[in-house]
Amino acid sequence: MVQYTDVLEAYNRVKDVVNKTPIMTSRTLNELVNAEIFLKCENFQRIGAFKMRGAYNAISQLSEKQKSRGVITHSSGNHAQAVALAAKLAGIRATIVMPKSSPQVKVNATRDTYNANVVMCEPTIEARQKTAQELIDKHGFTLIHPYDNDDVIAGAGTAAYELLNDVENLDMVFAPVGGGGLLSGTSIAVKGFDSDIKIFGVEPENVDDAYRSLKSGKIETNKTINSIADGLLTYLSERTFNIIEKNVDQIITVSEQEIADAMRFIWERMKLVVEPSGACSLAGVLSGKIRVDNKRIGVIISGGNIDLNEFFDLIQKKIRIKNNN
Amino acid sequence: MVQYTDVLEAYNRVKDVVNKTPIMTSRTLNELVNAEIFLKCENFQRIGAFKMRGAYNAISQLSEKQKSRGVITHSSGNHAQAVALAAKLAGIRATIVMPKSSPQVKVNATRDTYNANVVMCEPTIEARQKTAQELIDKHGFTLIHPYDNDDVIAGAGTAAYELLNDVENLDMVFAPVGGGGLLSGTSIAVKGFDSDIKIFGVEPENVDDAYRSLKSGKIETNKTINSIADGLLTYLSERTFNIIEKNVDQIITVSEQEIADAMRFIWERMKLVVEPSGACSLAGVLSGKIRVDNKRIGVIISGGNIDLNEFFDLIQKKIRIKNNN
Repeated sequence: MVQYTDVLEAYNRVKDVVNKTPIMTSRTLNELVNAEIFLKCENFQRIGAFKMRGAYNAISQLSEKQKSRGVITHSSGNHAQAVALAAKLAGIRATIVMPKSSPQVKVNATRDTYNANVVMCEPTIEARQKTAQELIDKHGFTLIHPYDNDDVIAGAGTAAYELLNDVENLDMVFAPVGGGGLLSGTSIAVKGFDSDIKIFGVEPENVDDAYRSLKSGKIETNKTINSIADGLLTYLSERTFNIIEKNVDQIITVSEQEIADAMRFIWERMKLVVEPSGACSLAGVLSGKIRVDNKRIGVIISGGNIDLNEFFDLIQKKIRIKNNN
Repeated sequence: MVQYTDVLEAYNRVKDVVNKTPIMTSRTLNELVNAEIFLKCENFQRIGAFKMRGAYNAISQLSEKQKSRGVITHSSGNHAQAVALAAKLAGIRATIVMPKSSPQVKVNATRDTYNANVVMCEPTIEARQKTAQELIDKHGFTLIHPYDNDDVIAGAGTAAYELLNDVENLDMVFAPVGGGGLLSGTSIAVKGFDSDIKIFGVEPENVDDAYRSLKSGKIETNKTINSIADGLLTYLSERTFNIIEKNVDQIITVSEQEIADAMRFIWERMKLVVEPSGACSLAGVLSGKIRVDNKRIGVIISGGNIDLNEFFDLIQKKIRIKNNN
């Protein structure tokens, strides 16, 4: 199992490559919940999400032989771009298996900005895994799994490690949970730093597999994946389940409306672009399910990658009107 | 005319009340323009814009008699909320004259959040001034003008003062220009700090009154106000014209499309919510009208207050679909 020392070692590997992201606060927010809230803003991380930490920590430890063969992952989300950029920085080849349903802009960014080799597949989780496995068998690529990987988990924990070093005397830390990589790494960092700090995972109630898994004592899956928090639709692995069961004090669920309301607060009042998955952790604080009065609370904002096409279409419409008046 | 020492004194008055806003950078942006860009993020200022600095600097210097009578301003924008909050913090009464066309959400925020007395008027600049003047005559309120006021200008300059102290060896500073309060204060701070630093004002070409004023040597006005940069639709006063003519190296204009493109870059790549007026200064850098190669450039992002209703309507629609699936 990943240990606190693994997070410390990961931090030394990634600290000169990843952004030391800022911690943002809001008087209005603190008054609203009668607590002191510290947002650890991984939306300001390279590629726009915490995923860069785990991907770089994993890739930087590959053997020369592994590096010469290259890495692979399957993802249409933040992890794809993290692996592509981390590989580029390490000077090695990356192959990203993406479902045909991926937005063209993401495919282009992964291929053109980060020079990754993109392989398209059918939009099912089975097709992704099969396509990746075939390429691994053929080329000897090393798989960088988005969360079922000790180095990825230890790297993810470095965000909380920075938070704990920047903000004294935290009582609680909230982090979102999807596959459990971020929550696992965060929990190891938090409990290793100070075992008295409570750690909460926050999950959309429409995809509450982690909540149910901790109740039943085994990995549960989701029948449907109807959440705007598109980074949290996966379920735990044995590896993340075991860490979370050991370290996490409680998993709480939030409705889609609570996620949207938290996101809106962060955009409107704090002027930060965060994605729905990234706002989940604050939604957990705002939900009122945990007593937070007078506590000092760290909140991991996991990322800020959201499609702004529709919003900027509205701006274009306004420009046309202005220019024609 | 406002002097550098006025900015220093203003800074000592406001520094414990306003936010010391962060400076944000982007590798992608620096590579794009082959320069080092430092965004001074006044979107993170209290009330979401730099206006808080000038309002508080002005209000904190009123006599006891003026304080007991209260202050007034006419604005539907950021200055209204800045005066309301600054007055609240100083424990004095504020009256804000707002046009009937103001969004209800802004009226409510000014009244409820900041306890200001809101007086509605017809949506013309003449009606605003007349309504305010009648209330001044009747109640003896002190007018806090949004830019035609030395203390407001000196206060606005404190954003650049913080920037200059945080970032060494700047070659250039870019700021947006509407009524000229921010550009005046910025130019005094910049030239007082180091007269070798170039200072540029950036203005929408659809409301290019300041650009034309510096050409003609007298205050020009706008025939139309067709810009998405709704904070920059006003024109200079004698006071701001004189300061800008003396200090500012050049005013450059940007198209509506350039403003939208700069705004989109800041939102998508830097994860910052900025308003169109706030993105104007970066639009000036990106316009290519000024050679910036290898320069160190400060960019004042004036604010981040933008109506997000339409965007979150789109999110609500997505939630309804998710919850019904």
